[in-house]
Formats: sequence, structure tokens, C-alpha cells
Amino acid sequence: MKIAIAQLNYHIGNFDGNLSKMLQSIDEAKAGGADMICFSELATCGYPPRDFLEFNDFINEAEATIQKLASAAQDIAVIVGSPTRNPLVEGKDLYNSAYFLYEGKVKAIRHKALLPTYDVFDEYRYFEPAITFETIDFMGKKIALTVCEDIWNIGNENPLYTVCPMDELITQEPDFMINISASPFNYNNPSGRRHIVLSNVKRYEIPMFYINHCGAQTELIFDGGSLVVSGNGQVYDELPFFEECIRFYDLAEVLKGHRNIDRPKKKIEMIHKALLMGVGDYFGKLGFQKAILGLSGGIDSAVTAVIAAQALGSENVRVILMPSQFSSDHSVNDARKLAENLGIQYDIIPIEEIYQSYSEILKPHFWGHSFDITEENIQARIRGMLLMAFSNKFGHIVLNTSNKSEMAVGYGTLYGDMCGGLSVLGDLYKMEVFELARSMNRDSEVIPWNIIEKPPSAELRPDQKDSDSLPDYEILDKVLFEYIENRKGPKEIIDMGYEETLVRRILRLVNINEFKRHQTAPVLRISPKAFGMGRRMPIVGKYLS
Amino acid sequence: MKIAIAQLNYHIGNFDGNLSKMLQSIDEAKAGGADMICFSELATCGYPPRDFLEFNDFINEAEATIQKLASAAQDIAVIVGSPTRNPLVEGKDLYNSAYFLYEGKVKAIRHKALLPTYDVFDEYRYFEPAITFETIDFMGKKIALTVCEDIWNIGNENPLYTVCPMDELITQEPDFMINISASPFNYNNPSGRRHIVLSNVKRYEIPMFYINHCGAQTELIFDGGSLVVSGNGQVYDELPFFEECIRFYDLAEVLKGHRNIDRPKKKIEMIHKALLMGVGDYFGKLGFQKAILGLSGGIDSAVTAVIAAQALGSENVRVILMPSQFSSDHSVNDARKLAENLGIQYDIIPIEEIYQSYSEILKPHFWGHSFDITEENIQARIRGMLLMAFSNKFGHIVLNTSNKSEMAVGYGTLYGDMCGGLSVLGDLYKMEVFELARSMNRDSEVIPWNIIEKPPSAELRPDQKDSDSLPDYEILDKVLFEYIENRKGPKEIIDMGYEETLVRRILRLVNINEFKRHQTAPVLRISPKAFGMGRRMPIVGKYLS
Repeated sequence: MKIAIAQLNYHIGNFDGNLSKMLQSIDEAKAGGADMICFSELATCGYPPRDFLEFNDFINEAEATIQKLASAAQDIAVIVGSPTRNPLVEGKDLYNSAYFLYEGKVKAIRHKALLPTYDVFDEYRYFEPAITFETIDFMGKKIALTVCEDIWNIGNENPLYTVCPMDELITQEPDFMINISASPFNYNNPSGRRHIVLSNVKRYEIPMFYINHCGAQTELIFDGGSLVVSGNGQVYDELPFFEECIRFYDLAEVLKGHRNIDRPKKKIEMIHKALLMGVGDYFGKLGFQKAILGLSGGIDSAVTAVIAAQALGSENVRVILMPSQFSSDHSVNDARKLAENLGIQYDIIPIEEIYQSYSEILKPHFWGHSFDITEENIQARIRGMLLMAFSNKFGHIVLNTSNKSEMAVGYGTLYGDMCGGLSVLGDLYKMEVFELARSMNRDSEVIPWNIIEKPPSAELRPDQKDSDSLPDYEILDKVLFEYIENRKGPKEIIDMGYEETLVRRILRLVNINEFKRHQTAPVLRISPKAFGMGRRMPIVGKYLS
Repeated sequence: MKIAIAQLNYHIGNFDGNLSKMLQSIDEAKAGGADMICFSELATCGYPPRDFLEFNDFINEAEATIQKLASAAQDIAVIVGSPTRNPLVEGKDLYNSAYFLYEGKVKAIRHKALLPTYDVFDEYRYFEPAITFETIDFMGKKIALTVCEDIWNIGNENPLYTVCPMDELITQEPDFMINISASPFNYNNPSGRRHIVLSNVKRYEIPMFYINHCGAQTELIFDGGSLVVSGNGQVYDELPFFEECIRFYDLAEVLKGHRNIDRPKKKIEMIHKALLMGVGDYFGKLGFQKAILGLSGGIDSAVTAVIAAQALGSENVRVILMPSQFSSDHSVNDARKLAENLGIQYDIIPIEEIYQSYSEILKPHFWGHSFDITEENIQARIRGMLLMAFSNKFGHIVLNTSNKSEMAVGYGTLYGDMCGGLSVLGDLYKMEVFELARSMNRDSEVIPWNIIEKPPSAELRPDQKDSDSLPDYEILDKVLFEYIENRKGPKEIIDMGYEETLVRRILRLVNINEFKRHQTAPVLRISPKAFGMGRRMPIVGKYLS
């Protein structure tokens, strides 16, 4: 049996687009002599469709797509994910299903049993879990077909679920496993995913074909990296990351298992590629070409500009340098030099005059009050407004340049530097932004080294440094990581050796600034716990605040 | 047996505050001779605690609160909701539980079986469902104790769950039911809730004590309205809406059931009260007193100002009138008259000079481009910035004045009129805003009638009217309601008799403006489907867009 696996970049709700991609792959698979082709989870409608699943019309479209795929499944079997309706009156209305299409018909449907409902996942919101399990017969072989999370409930110290679908399926003695997934990237996931696939193969001693989705859907970046693992636990093949790809396998060869592919991955390079795909797909799928951002001379906007230029092309990126009376000469020079290195259009628009017009008009109302955060925010908001004006006039999307450290503690101005349609670096702590910047300069100076080496400053008042109001990023980032990624409480963090006053101050800042993060752009997710849909916090609360 | 039910206003994560409220009620109940007092769901930590539940430290705090309540449960039994840890290694780590405290100890714990995971609810994200059911013995009676959703799976045409906890419990022949809830308001819920409680009593033929939470937690407004229903189906008592309350019942009298309370509720008045509680608690629980908003002379800001003045006191509300060259005289006069009617501080700050300074600086960049949405947005953003400046300088929270119709179709400026810390009217369609305004003027003219009667206009270009770019609100609101609240697709809405081009245009506008709603303030929820946490839509998609 010859099996094709297609790791494709779908688009939520774009039924025609997804269908034509799959039809093209089916043609390719047929031409390549494949007996079967496998697509990923919810490939008809894209993943995650979120509340579109509550629309009958949307499910109808998915069903129509399945019918069209079934018609194309002549002389080739097609495995594809799509939502199905639950025929029972009790329980949720839908299943998250894997279709087996063959001879022009729907031959079998298998439902997902383990429905991730944590972090960025909401599957129990929509789907009823499968409670029966059955292999599929094809060309004299028995296939154990599962959907994504179904293979993840093994080898965990603290399993989330009380069932394990493969434990059920293995009793029917399948010859191999197919898992269709939509498993989003975080920097731990390529190795975590590999570990899970290998654990399954080790436990059940049969090969697995693991087909992942590839492409970004707003904040979630699906990295691909599909796997073929032989029954002896050797990685027979690994598909590329962040790229569409179709490949063919002779089942007999995979069963033999004489290959072992092992490609080490560098964390910062994976993050870099993820951000490129995140930006590229956000624009591409929304039908935009051009990005604009403010270049301050600081490291965050510099790294964002590099990502934008690499993802969209230099000709599609425009930057505005908006110095105020507090901006240092080196900031403007550094920013200009970066723009020149990248070959992107830049303009310098000083904001002092507009700032003065606000000052004038507010003077009678603010009489007797001294310069404070208000005036700092006015500067940041003038810059946000100018960027939005260009965006409105010329059809750019404004890229947000905030990093995770400052978003965490609220060191940013709502509607000012926190504005933008997409947050590129909002899931990278400041120290990770530095690491990424240095890695960008590995071969030659893309980002002027001075930008990387000077002390971070918002330049919103004379001689300001971030370290005036924030702890050193080395410490801040570590405390934030323990609180945000590891969900440690204050006592646990203090017990690790961090100073109590500092820890309580940082945790308080994180919690009282939830209102700001509520109003920010979607954040490209590269960590196991990003701000946004995967971290749901009350705004009104009184816990560590 | 004398039973007290305490309908209290909790605060998420404020363990000390919640505890002291409950201790005070326990004292009051003892003084009133009660044998038992019932609090509502997750009362120790407040509802919904969201991802705070993932913090061990948070669960420890809840457990410590339970221990303190148990110590106070001398000579009186206490029923209270709190999270508990799942002792089994498999499954989610927590249960959503009802504690039965007596004689200084935890006597029994019952777990919630039906975990709402739809709309604004995420309970399966955190909790394992109960699979065993047991009544509780107290003073010679058997109590069937359930938590909120547990009683909602009866009488539905399309039940969400495959179990019904009371069907299990009734086999143990309980004498009465207690349900502790945290059931948030929407204008259908008071009657829906009453219907469910009555359906349970009808089915099981024993009385029910139904204790709801009362108070707002960011966007969710818990309305109270706790119920006591006799076994014969008579409503023995209904607690007030939007108010804390403790009441006492003689079980023997409730069992007899000689009272029938029926208080009709007016939808628009309930909405009005809900918004007052929503605003009041948002400020009170965050520790703020003062609100600021822009008064345009239009109806949305007028109604928002009335709500603010009623919720926070006239002395705590400040409004800014920010006319541009496109503002009509009547707008300024109407706004001023409203401020005078309400007795709130107002200032008039024309924005023309600031607008000119932007124009000047942008002129070389925008050369050859005519006045368009860019310049409209600049005006809206200058207003937003001025409000934020006052907010920063004096500690006001900016109230957002957008209505649901304009938020739906994106008829608003991000970082401009869409700014603010809380959206007061974001769940009211324009026609509902008019209805609320007229109801506010029922006894006397609070809002100048001219504001209610003139045609809506954004006044961002000469002689602009909303109807220049939007369909009439009478039609727009109905189509939006079918799409948003009823999740009807285009074909279904067109089949209802609406014009196809119009329907497709409106649905497209809703979908392509998801990016704007992603960045807006939390919206006080008064409908069954509000923008925000209860409506989760992809930003990048291609469905009806």
C-alpha cells in the first residue's frame, strides 16, 4: 500500500479554498500512485473554527465539502477531518471526526474521544466525545484512525482523561495507526509531539502516520512537522516545519523500518520561523500586503521590522520614526540605519508640535498638576494615532511591537504603543527578544548592534531607562515565567530564592494590568502559555492585586 | 427546620472579603434561629475565577476559607460552594463542589456533574464531572444538594448532557432540593431560571431552595432572584433582583406551600438595573470611584451618562464635550442640557486645533489624497486621547459608549470612540438603546427629548447621518439579532424575507470587523449572546466575509 500524507495550510471557513487545495493534492497523490491520502484535523473548515461551529450553515458547508471530496475519492482512499452532526438528541450537537472516503462514498467516520479544553483549546464547547472505537479495513490492513488529542493520554503523570482510545483500538489488532492533527506550535511542542508519537509506537508496537496542519490562524501557528514512525520506534520520516508538503510512503517499507531521521531543532530558529509564518498568514489570509510600524530605535520595534520585512518583503513594509523632545539622537540614527539595512521605506515625523497642541488645550484643565504618566502616554498615543492614520489612508496593517515582559507588567500605553492589528513579539520575554535579535545578526549586522547593546528605554521623559521603574529583565523575566508559564504562586516563587517584595510587586502588576491585555491585538503564540485566548483571567478580581 | 438563604455579592479572589461577608451572614442566621444557611456556587473564591483555578495557591486559599467557615459552622449547618481537588490521578484536577459544613467540620462534599461549557462558560476547562450522587442527611431530613447547571438538563428538546443528576438523587427519596448557583443575567434568564426550578419541582414533587449569586464580575452580572418553591409548584418566595439579601424559611411551612409569589418583570427595567449593577461593581470592586466619558449630543453617550450618574453618583461622573467643525450646534446644546439635568461636571474642549496639527504634519504624506475615513477616525481618536488624558491625570475610568449595532458592523473607530475601560451599552442594539432612553424619561425629561428624536449621526463629516452608510436600525438590528443571537446563516435570514444583498453585506461587516471587537473593553452582558467571552470568533477567516 502506498500512502500519501499532505501537510497543508488551510484557512478557516474558506471551504472552496481548502477543497481546491485538497483536490489538487488528491490528483498529485493519484499521479504518484498512492492508494490513500491523509489530510489533517478539521481540514474542510480549518482549525480552530471556534463559534462558527454553532452555525448550521457552516456545518452544511463542511458537509458539502466532504461530498465533493468523496466524489474525488475514486481509486484512492481519502482520510480527512471535518465536523459531523451528532444524530442523538442528547449531548453536544457535533463530533470532531475523521472521514474515510473511498469509491466515491463516505465509507467510515471515526469521532475524536479526547477533547482538549484547556489553554487555547475549547473543544468540549462544541463536540461530544466518542465512546466507541473501531478500526477501519482497507486493502487487507486494519487501520487505527484517531484524531489529534486521542493519542496524548499516555505516559502522563497526571492524565487529563479517564480513557485512552488506542488502548481500545489495539484490542482489534490494527496493522498501523493514523492520527490526523491540528497541533499548534509552541517551542516545546515539536519535541513533545515527537515524544508522544514515539510513546504510542513503543506501547502499541505498530507504525504511526501522524499528519499535522501547517499554517497560522490568527494567533495560533501550526508548524507541521508531520511524522512517520516505524513499529520499531525509528523515525522513518519527518516533514518540514512551517511548510506545506506532500510525501509518499510504501507501507511495507515503513513496516520494515530501516530509516531513522533525526533533525535537531534550535529553539530560537523555530521561534523565528513561527513568527514569519504567523505574520505572513495573518496578512495573506486577510488579503493584506502592507505593514506599518513605528521604529523607535529600541530593540522590540527593530526585531518586529526585521520579521515584517522577511515575512512580507521589504517593499511591503513601511516604518515611521516619530521622535519627541525626549528622543536621543542615537535612537533616530539607529532606527534609520536599520531601515536602510532592511531596504524599507521610512519617514521621520517629529511629534512635538502635536504634543504641544494637546498640552495647550489641556493646560487649563491640568493646571497645578505636574508632568506624569499622562504626558508620557500622550506621546505614545500620538504615535499610535499617526500609525493608524497611515493604516487608514493606505491600507497598511499596523504591527504591534510590545514584548511579553512589558505586556505582563503593563509597561505600555493602551491605544499608544499597545496599538496594532497583530502583536508579533507579545509572546517573547524581553530576554528572548534579545536572543532573537542576536540570532538575526548571526551572519551579518541586520540590526545595528547599538540597538541590541544599549540599555532599554521608553524615552518618554528625560534620561528615562526601563530599569528606573522595572526590575532587571533577567530577574523580571524569570519571575514572570514562574507565574505565567508555570502557574506558581507567590510563596512557591519566593521559596525559589526571589526577594518577597519584588515577587509580590511583579505578580500584582501582572494582575492589575489584565484590563490592558484585554484590549490588545492577538499575540502570535510561541510559548506554552501566551497572553490571549489561552490565558483567561478575570479583570475584576482581588487576588495577588 | 429553619433555613436561611443568603444571596450575596462576592468578589473573585477576594477570599478575606467573601469570608467576612459569609461569617456575618452566619451570625445573622444564628441570631435569627436558623438551623442551616446556604450560600451560592463557588462563593469562597467568587464566580467565575477563570484561570486562577490553575494556581495551587488559589485553591489553597479556597480550602483555607472553607476551614474557617467550618469552624463557624457550630450549631448551624452551612452549605457553600468552593473548588475541591480531585483525589484521583486521572481526569481534571478539580471539582466544582458544594460543601456541607456542620459541628465545626466538613461533613459532606457534593460535586457538580453538569459542567456548562458554552457561551460565557468554561467549566470543563477546569472541572471533572461528578459521576456518583448521594443525598445528605440533616435533622431527620434528606437533602438533594446540587450545583447550578445540575438541574438544567430536564425538559429540553436538545439536551446538552447525557445524565440528569436529580434523576439519580430522587431514587434516594430526598425531602427537598437545594441548588446553589451562579447564574448570570440575561434578559431571558429570570423567566428561564424560574421555569427550570418549577420544572424540577413538578418532576420530583419536592420543594427546592435555589440560591443564586448576586453582583457583577467584570462583564457578567449575577442578578440574584433566588427562589423557594413548594413541592406543589407554588413559588413560596422570590428574593429581590440585583440586591444582596438574607431570608429565613420554616421548612414545614415551605412543605405546606400556601403562598404563591408572582412578580412580573419588565425587560427594559431589568436591563436598566443590570447595567447599574454592572457599572457600580466594576468600579467598586476595582477600587475606583470616578467615571469620565465623551458626551456627543447623541443617544448612546447620553444613556451611558445617565447610567453612570445613577450607578456612581452625579459627583463622580465627569463628561467632556469635544465638538469639531462638523458638530452641529444642537449637539453641544443637547449635551450641555443633559449634563445640567444630571448635575454632572462638564467641560467643552473643541478639537479643531489638535485636528489641524495632525493635518499639518500629515499633509506632505497624504498629498493628493482626499478627506476619507482617515480624517473621520483622527477626530474620533483625538477625543479618545483626551478622555484617556483626563483618566490618567485624575484617576477616572473612561466609559465606552458604543452600542451593539455599531460594534457588530464596525461602525466605530478603534482607539477612538471604541476606547474605554468598560462598555456599558455594547450588548444593547441601537433600538434597545432608544427604548432604554425613553424609559429613563418616563417620569420626567432626564435625557433631552431632542437627543432621542433626532436622526443618529457620528458628525465626522458635513451633514453626516448613520443612515448614509448603514441600513435603518429597525432592519439592521433584526438581521443582526438573527445572525448573532439566533446563529442563523444567510440563507435562513434571506428566507425570512430580508433582502439578499443587504443580508450578505451585514453578515460580511460583522465578520470582517472581528478584529475591532477583539480589542474592545469588556461588554456588560444583558442578552443571551453578547460580544466578548461568550462569542468566540476567528479573526482570520473567510466565512461570509
